[in-house]
Amino acid sequence: MDLTNLHWVGAVEGARMIRDGVITSVELVQACLACVREVDGQIQAWAFLDPEHALAQARAADEYRMSGQPTGALHGVPVGIKDIIDTADMPTENGSVLHAGRTPSRDASVVSLLRAAGAIVMGKTVTTEFATRTPGKTRNPHNPAHTPGGSSSGSAAAVAAGMVPLALGSQTTGSTIRPASYCGVFGFKPTHGLVPRHGMFQLSRTLDHVGLFARSLEDIALLLGELAAHDERDPDSRPRARVPYRDVAAQEPPLTPMFAFLKTPLWDRVDPDAREAFEELVDHLGGRVEEIELVVSIDEVLEWQRAIGGAEMAISLRREWDNGRDKLSPALRSRIEHGRAVRAVDYLGARASIPELAASLTELFEQRYDAILTPAAFGTAPAGLESTGDPAFCALWTLCGMPALSVPLMQGANGLPLGVQLVGARHRDGQLLRAVRWLVSHLQANPVSMT
Amino acid sequence: MDLTNLHWVGAVEGARMIRDGVITSVELVQACLACVREVDGQIQAWAFLDPEHALAQARAADEYRMSGQPTGALHGVPVGIKDIIDTADMPTENGSVLHAGRTPSRDASVVSLLRAAGAIVMGKTVTTEFATRTPGKTRNPHNPAHTPGGSSSGSAAAVAAGMVPLALGSQTTGSTIRPASYCGVFGFKPTHGLVPRHGMFQLSRTLDHVGLFARSLEDIALLLGELAAHDERDPDSRPRARVPYRDVAAQEPPLTPMFAFLKTPLWDRVDPDAREAFEELVDHLGGRVEEIELVVSIDEVLEWQRAIGGAEMAISLRREWDNGRDKLSPALRSRIEHGRAVRAVDYLGARASIPELAASLTELFEQRYDAILTPAAFGTAPAGLESTGDPAFCALWTLCGMPALSVPLMQGANGLPLGVQLVGARHRDGQLLRAVRWLVSHLQANPVSMT
Repeated sequence: MDLTNLHWVGAVEGARMIRDGVITSVELVQACLACVREVDGQIQAWAFLDPEHALAQARAADEYRMSGQPTGALHGVPVGIKDIIDTADMPTENGSVLHAGRTPSRDASVVSLLRAAGAIVMGKTVTTEFATRTPGKTRNPHNPAHTPGGSSSGSAAAVAAGMVPLALGSQTTGSTIRPASYCGVFGFKPTHGLVPRHGMFQLSRTLDHVGLFARSLEDIALLLGELAAHDERDPDSRPRARVPYRDVAAQEPPLTPMFAFLKTPLWDRVDPDAREAFEELVDHLGGRVEEIELVVSIDEVLEWQRAIGGAEMAISLRREWDNGRDKLSPALRSRIEHGRAVRAVDYLGARASIPELAASLTELFEQRYDAILTPAAFGTAPAGLESTGDPAFCALWTLCGMPALSVPLMQGANGLPLGVQLVGARHRDGQLLRAVRWLVSHLQANPVSMT
Repeated sequence: MDLTNLHWVGAVEGARMIRDGVITSVELVQACLACVREVDGQIQAWAFLDPEHALAQARAADEYRMSGQPTGALHGVPVGIKDIIDTADMPTENGSVLHAGRTPSRDASVVSLLRAAGAIVMGKTVTTEFATRTPGKTRNPHNPAHTPGGSSSGSAAAVAAGMVPLALGSQTTGSTIRPASYCGVFGFKPTHGLVPRHGMFQLSRTLDHVGLFARSLEDIALLLGELAAHDERDPDSRPRARVPYRDVAAQEPPLTPMFAFLKTPLWDRVDPDAREAFEELVDHLGGRVEEIELVVSIDEVLEWQRAIGGAEMAISLRREWDNGRDKLSPALRSRIEHGRAVRAVDYLGARASIPELAASLTELFEQRYDAILTPAAFGTAPAGLESTGDPAFCALWTLCGMPALSVPLMQGANGLPLGVQLVGARHRDGQLLRAVRWLVSHLQANPVSMT
């Protein structure tokens, strides 16, 4: 068999081929490593990658499979892990010199779940400083002069460049959706609390989510099925019945889905070519989409997000602030200073506003729509590596803990990818994936003729 | 049968007599109402009491019983409800002119649970202003020139005076333990989250607890058994297996209980006669009690409690602050001002300290002790009605959400009652009640000869 393009194989397909003995995990990992050697000099997606250690895991997976024992859904499939997620066998440095050489003794919950599913922990992907806005070294795989987005920069870039079929990131404002949009991959932020965060660097208990990256919707659904689990060490995790996400996502929707197109008051700041691409997509979907208005003030939402994120960041980074302030970037120092000045009543007021806000948005789903369709970002990846772009289009859904998916459906006038953000109701992650699968298939069968 | 002293009958006994047809609920409620008529002119325990409505409920309970249908554990037993706990059929004014005439349309969770158990909602008991420190009209039943304590003033006084066998209160610092100690009744603050708070005025999500008042340990256990329930409308309530609290409390402990006597650094401020009474009690218990030291700084604990309680109170009362500040007492205004000035990082820092603090205290129970024995207050009820007394001895256990019980075991040189506070590990409410039952029986069999 020709293994030249094996590193472009997805997780569902790769796992199937390994299970069926068509390829070995070692062959898949070697193909990915070859891709890393070829492209990563320019992209710089990895904070830590020991090829020998990845291959050792792959060899063990192959031996295990050949022993005839039952294997997990991700058996032999390599996954990149954002470097704010603890791994017992690799460093986890949280994107800061203050944590250089940090070697946690335990795996994060999601890493344990991946290993239990048979996955290979390929290496640690580059994060911005403490998953905030100060960039790491990674470049956009589509154009190295552009940002890959952040904070899950390495995870989005590694998946986009074919270095790994799956990666984990995180999102506290727009750290999964934005880089997925900029890099042209699927990026998924599940419902808050659905995927446990224990062992992931905590920036904000209220806003932190684990993020998922893949090159297909099926791979996202497969990965979610392995990661959605109760873990009482995450205070926002609750026991719930297991949902077969892959099956739900693959189902034909009982009714043809309806989408709510939401421009938000941020629309005027969207790049003109992105606005045009959106209008075309919406026109093309015809009766399946209706434009709606945001009933809340986006300025207020952004203020709540800042109060909660700022105060919780200030408390999460209090040791670094007290003992190593001079080793933080000036931008982060300034954000911490703002966070430290937030009053508890404003913080609590912002938190108290979430349930009502979420309820008003959930009503949309009860009434009529299967998903909200809205920009993932203000346009394609901005030029330059000094900024990771503006996450404002993600703030509302992160604040409300609603599942959000960036789908690589469009591109800008500069040829760079441009994601569409699809948002579902809390804990209807499976229904969201199902509606998006319908959308993707529909567009494949009826392509938009972009002007 | 002589019904003269029927109002002194406890809930276990009263429910049994009604079940067996020895008395009717109407007779029990009439006896309680007669007591109210006789003594409440002086004590002023009730914010609302409609004798006809209480009797109507009792008549309905008697008819129901005579129909032969199965009855609940509190069938026909009257219960007083603190006037911060919503009742659909009576006003709930939260001890403030700002909420005068407030008539909620729904019962609080605990009121629904009481009605489901067959209880008669006797009336609403006096609370301090919004369950804080500005007193209501209630006086101490043992001496009307002294405070009954607060904020659950009316509930403690009503039970102490024989006006009702059971009452509900609340505790955010020491609002159940302190009035129970001052009034000479059992007052129990269960583990945080065990008894749902939906429909109770929220002063502080982190610190609020429902409180239970009765004249015997058996009655406390009976009441707890009916109120410990999951309610997802209380965000700190979790589903858990039902514990038969009455049975557990009645069991002989597998090993003779060991008590840890904890003076805390507040000890020097305890009244001399109360210190003496405590030393005698501890001497009397001999090998069953060992003195321990507090490993945390009580000043730090009180500061955390103030940061959390202050900030959460400021957000809970923000509408009253914004629209009716001049109708709040000067003392409450000043506390809200302090709460509004708390920084979010200090609030979050205080909250983050709770798990470690609670874990260090829980170790005591793992290692050696069945309960911590410590003062409930600095002495007997202070003279005067301007203050409800100092809750500092309750702050630590409230902050950690540990179950705490005030047991009326002693009295001061002035003849007023003096409670002993017994504290258990979180979610071992049953074991705490069991250890205390042993203690009470042991002391009945071997009375302390108070000098």
